[in-house]
Amino acid sequence: MSSTNLIVVTPVERDTFLVDGRLEALKSLIAPCRVVDVESYSEASWIELLQETNPRILVAGWKVKPLPADVRSEVAPALEYVCYLPGSIRHFVPRDLIEQGVLVTNWSSSISRIVAECALLLSLACMRRVAHWSHQMHDEGGWKDLTTVTQSLFDRRVGIHGFGAIAKELLPLLRPFTNKISTYTEGVPEEVFEEFGIRKADSLPQLFSENDLIIELEALTPAREMIVDEALLRSIPEGGAFVNVARGALVDEEALLRVAQEGRIQVGLDVYTVEPLPADHPFRGCRNINMLPHLGGPSTDRRRDAADHSLENVRRFKRGEPVESPITLEIYDRST
Amino acid sequence: MSSTNLIVVTPVERDTFLVDGRLEALKSLIAPCRVVDVESYSEASWIELLQETNPRILVAGWKVKPLPADVRSEVAPALEYVCYLPGSIRHFVPRDLIEQGVLVTNWSSSISRIVAECALLLSLACMRRVAHWSHQMHDEGGWKDLTTVTQSLFDRRVGIHGFGAIAKELLPLLRPFTNKISTYTEGVPEEVFEEFGIRKADSLPQLFSENDLIIELEALTPAREMIVDEALLRSIPEGGAFVNVARGALVDEEALLRVAQEGRIQVGLDVYTVEPLPADHPFRGCRNINMLPHLGGPSTDRRRDAADHSLENVRRFKRGEPVESPITLEIYDRST
Repeated sequence: MSSTNLIVVTPVERDTFLVDGRLEALKSLIAPCRVVDVESYSEASWIELLQETNPRILVAGWKVKPLPADVRSEVAPALEYVCYLPGSIRHFVPRDLIEQGVLVTNWSSSISRIVAECALLLSLACMRRVAHWSHQMHDEGGWKDLTTVTQSLFDRRVGIHGFGAIAKELLPLLRPFTNKISTYTEGVPEEVFEEFGIRKADSLPQLFSENDLIIELEALTPAREMIVDEALLRSIPEGGAFVNVARGALVDEEALLRVAQEGRIQVGLDVYTVEPLPADHPFRGCRNINMLPHLGGPSTDRRRDAADHSLENVRRFKRGEPVESPITLEIYDRST
Repeated sequence: MSSTNLIVVTPVERDTFLVDGRLEALKSLIAPCRVVDVESYSEASWIELLQETNPRILVAGWKVKPLPADVRSEVAPALEYVCYLPGSIRHFVPRDLIEQGVLVTNWSSSISRIVAECALLLSLACMRRVAHWSHQMHDEGGWKDLTTVTQSLFDRRVGIHGFGAIAKELLPLLRPFTNKISTYTEGVPEEVFEEFGIRKADSLPQLFSENDLIIELEALTPAREMIVDEALLRSIPEGGAFVNVARGALVDEEALLRVAQEGRIQVGLDVYTVEPLPADHPFRGCRNINMLPHLGGPSTDRRRDAADHSLENVRRFKRGEPVESPITLEIYDRST
């Protein structure tokens, strides 16, 4: 039975992920293949495309349509490898496919340094109260006065909640400023902390109460929903800051708003429990919350890093070698 | 003739610069001395205080009154050392005093790393368009869409105009992101660039046209007024950024506004030709200008670094050793 591989991308995805010769490299690597934009496709025409091409390798961007759980038995029996260029795969790849042994990869940690950069930006923004000053300078004709308080990241105590790929990329960005960095997480072997030269706090309450800047980077699991509660937020030393570039649902957002409104701490947020953030959400207008609309992932100019990671994985797959960071059932179940 | 040294600080200056035992250390170092807040003093009562105390050492903060040019012949003949805790001394110390051999110091480069931090913040803010998103998130109920463009500092070409103390402190903050850093300035020996491992561009036009991010750190001299003109600003590659944490008058601000309004580049500004920035200044409201109200100097929490620098200089002066970074006539004349 014949098989034509598929690259499913919109023009924007093609021109940002697969830029500077990457599309050509990918095409020659997985020839014969077709490049298709399915954004306007119906569910039926998408299935038809899969049937018609029966790809062994499917490379896809954000606007791909969901794969049916029976794709291998009923639609595209040749399918062996789903290479998703972005990150969150649950809307696209049913769990069954991984159980059936279909190989699935995503951008994995190829974008971690860009999220770490966003964490640093929001941290520095908290220190100098950028949202406040942006509003004052643009809308209020404002200027500093003698009561203006600003802070620096130099010599500050930083606590990182979670110690995965992004935290590891964040360390070299923080170290020119401070060596007072500690972390708290569970399930990471002690030698990892030693390897990265970072102190592990004894508990989450200790992490929050003994640091001036808390950076939230923990993975969201059902057990961790709203793990950052009002007591933890209130234990951050007065004048401190809380930055979240992980997942909004890790935090009790109502409590966060209360603490922020009291002016106790500065807050930097890239993520929210409900996204897009509702237009009438009470975070909006609270000027010691520095907000971005979930831009922490790869900036437009670094989508090419995710493509390079995928290209390398396709090369390995073609050579019969193990790919980097395949999505296991465990990873699938704790992904968002 | 008796002499009592003077520490002239407001309560806020005392509690930020001379915090954590620094006031006590200074007092015992220069005893006998008096600590005075002269903010509400008249010119006459200030002169009276100088006459009455006749200090050999005068340590002062922002709210000190100007010293008369004849202070040594007519008012306080014992005066030998003026130790100014902050930076800009021209409003306070007449040039004559330096000519007469009075030793003058200020915070010098003890605060350079904090200004460098501000330059990094504004650079990252340009990359993610923080002023735009702060406005969108707080005031417009906004959220990102498929056309949203963001950038990263990773692997970006950075051009630094000027290579003094702040630029040297900026290098370790930039290096985790990129090694593509060059500089342009005049009068700095070639070996300095080698020592810091930085490439010198052949010309200012080359610096601007061959980098994606320009960071303005040049010292302002009469010859450099508006040296950053429309042609230079237009030569920054489209999608690039221009950050100024040096002096506003280095830039043709009308040209900068035109180029920013066209959306060609993102802009980050901490300094302006006229400060405070007038309430009706056309920069205000142009959302691809990320603005701070000249907060680049030491953040409140790092004024202690300036005090430590001053304390060390007072110690040296007392021991008869040369102080660090005395204000020479040359430095005085090019200071702002």
